[in-house]
Amino acid sequence: MKKIAIDAMGGDYAPQSIVEGVNQALNDFSDVEVILYGDEAKIKQYLKATERVRIVHTDEKINSDDEPTKAIRKKKNASMVLAAKAVKTGEADAILSAGNTGALLAAGFFIVGRIKNIDRPGLMSTLPTTDGKGFDMLDLGANAENTAHHLHQYAILGSFYAENVRGVKQPRVGLLNNGTESSKGDSLRKEVYDLLVSDASLNFIGNVEARDLMDHVADVVVADGFTGNAVLKAMEGTAMGIMSQLKKSILDNGWKAKLGAVLLKDSLKSLKSSLNYSEVGGAVLFGVQAPVVKTHGASDAKAVYSTIRQIRTMLETDVVGKAVQEFSGEVK
Amino acid sequence: MKKIAIDAMGGDYAPQSIVEGVNQALNDFSDVEVILYGDEAKIKQYLKATERVRIVHTDEKINSDDEPTKAIRKKKNASMVLAAKAVKTGEADAILSAGNTGALLAAGFFIVGRIKNIDRPGLMSTLPTTDGKGFDMLDLGANAENTAHHLHQYAILGSFYAENVRGVKQPRVGLLNNGTESSKGDSLRKEVYDLLVSDASLNFIGNVEARDLMDHVADVVVADGFTGNAVLKAMEGTAMGIMSQLKKSILDNGWKAKLGAVLLKDSLKSLKSSLNYSEVGGAVLFGVQAPVVKTHGASDAKAVYSTIRQIRTMLETDVVGKAVQEFSGEVK
Repeated sequence: MKKIAIDAMGGDYAPQSIVEGVNQALNDFSDVEVILYGDEAKIKQYLKATERVRIVHTDEKINSDDEPTKAIRKKKNASMVLAAKAVKTGEADAILSAGNTGALLAAGFFIVGRIKNIDRPGLMSTLPTTDGKGFDMLDLGANAENTAHHLHQYAILGSFYAENVRGVKQPRVGLLNNGTESSKGDSLRKEVYDLLVSDASLNFIGNVEARDLMDHVADVVVADGFTGNAVLKAMEGTAMGIMSQLKKSILDNGWKAKLGAVLLKDSLKSLKSSLNYSEVGGAVLFGVQAPVVKTHGASDAKAVYSTIRQIRTMLETDVVGKAVQEFSGEVK
Repeated sequence: MKKIAIDAMGGDYAPQSIVEGVNQALNDFSDVEVILYGDEAKIKQYLKATERVRIVHTDEKINSDDEPTKAIRKKKNASMVLAAKAVKTGEADAILSAGNTGALLAAGFFIVGRIKNIDRPGLMSTLPTTDGKGFDMLDLGANAENTAHHLHQYAILGSFYAENVRGVKQPRVGLLNNGTESSKGDSLRKEVYDLLVSDASLNFIGNVEARDLMDHVADVVVADGFTGNAVLKAMEGTAMGIMSQLKKSILDNGWKAKLGAVLLKDSLKSLKSSLNYSEVGGAVLFGVQAPVVKTHGASDAKAVYSTIRQIRTMLETDVVGKAVQEFSGEVK
């Protein structure tokens, strides 16, 4: 049985979308058990599942504007903190939250705990490509500063994830850089390049540019947390900007454009869904001792469901256990 | 008279699109004079203008795959090198090229020369926003590594440009960071933040995130060259990816979608043009002693024309002269 501790109170549509996602997941996955942390009365309003689920009541919760590390320390009974503690004590195998990202990272770091020999767990997501296959990128911002050693570990972790969880054979690892030639980049990138090229366990394909990410130029893309965060947000911002621009230009161009938009409805829908991060699950804090997964704050039930499915696969393939094994013997 | 030295042989559609852009510019701007560097016979095929234009013939040119600094040194008679030398000697006031970006940066750096007290000129472009007004961002990749001092200078240069060339009063300067709070970022960003906040000559509005750039969150966005390059390429790649995805989903969704696309033609066109970098001109290597402007390799005549118009405004407002003045007394 796979036991998932879920922060029922995090996110814009909590607890409704969280609980509805849980209902569906428990219905589909008979090997999943859920512990919901949060306001019992509110959770019960939406909870339909009766088996393999229990509620641990708490009044306290972490807000989206709470200072992460402080919140984790002070709000000892917050739903997110209790869920993380359940993982720490072995009562649960993984944690899911749609709440304050910084606080979840801090909970992963300080409560769940790092894997031995991994200094800086990284935030990883599967991001969309135009061929629908996606790529994994990390660090997306768990850290503001990284060393070459961290980025080497991200390459290994990302490969583990792509191979085990997404079933990509020999995932192609690319280093995000300001050009594709091997000589490119700042001193950090040059150092990382040398480390990756000498690691025979990796299928390192060299430097990749942000321009080519959506073309599926690599299955795993390695970046420092600052750049990874900036690139992720640039992609999100541009996608949102273009969609709103398209909407605006439809409204500005009269009845013909409006009729066109009606006829194009299916195309626009499939475009939107291909860009939809919610279908591939949440962002994983990778490098801690259990799956710690953040689903988007605006997640609907479907996104929560997808994230539970993702966690289930992570537990089934024991991708975290394999990482523990891989790094256990590392001499630093 | 504003004299512009133009590399007629750089870019994918050279010399045709270059010369056609020149024809139109000379027709519209009676205060502009052009020197075209390149293959005289080929240039003459397209040149319609007869006044305020002359050709300096050369057989040599820099290719897109030439190693930049080496090419500048070895190909002494390349069209781009001759154009840069004309600026150096005062024969021309500015240079425009659609060729090898790295080589143009090297030519700007080593031939045109830096402004006194500016260590690291930055590459700057006006990028699109959904409200159509745009923002200036630098450094977009002239440097792989920058110090806080460089970024402070970029804030000043970017403000000068936005105010003088684009007519933005008291341009809002934002620091690209991984969060908006003042405490955010790596050590570089924290140092830059302190410098910008204490510079009363700037309208510094604090940290901005890549997600909000298209929403026109700032008029000038300051970044180190590595991050700026990654963000620019992420924006370009996402825009291209979405447009190709939209095309694909129209083709996949049958006659209704195709008819919808026909009706939406004007909307799609205006969307494309709002994302079109070519209408706002080229990328400026800012911090050298004259306007050195790179227009996109795939530039058509219209883009070349827009870039000439941009250079004309830069010369008219003497934005480079003002920067020389500003930094002349700086104690480092």
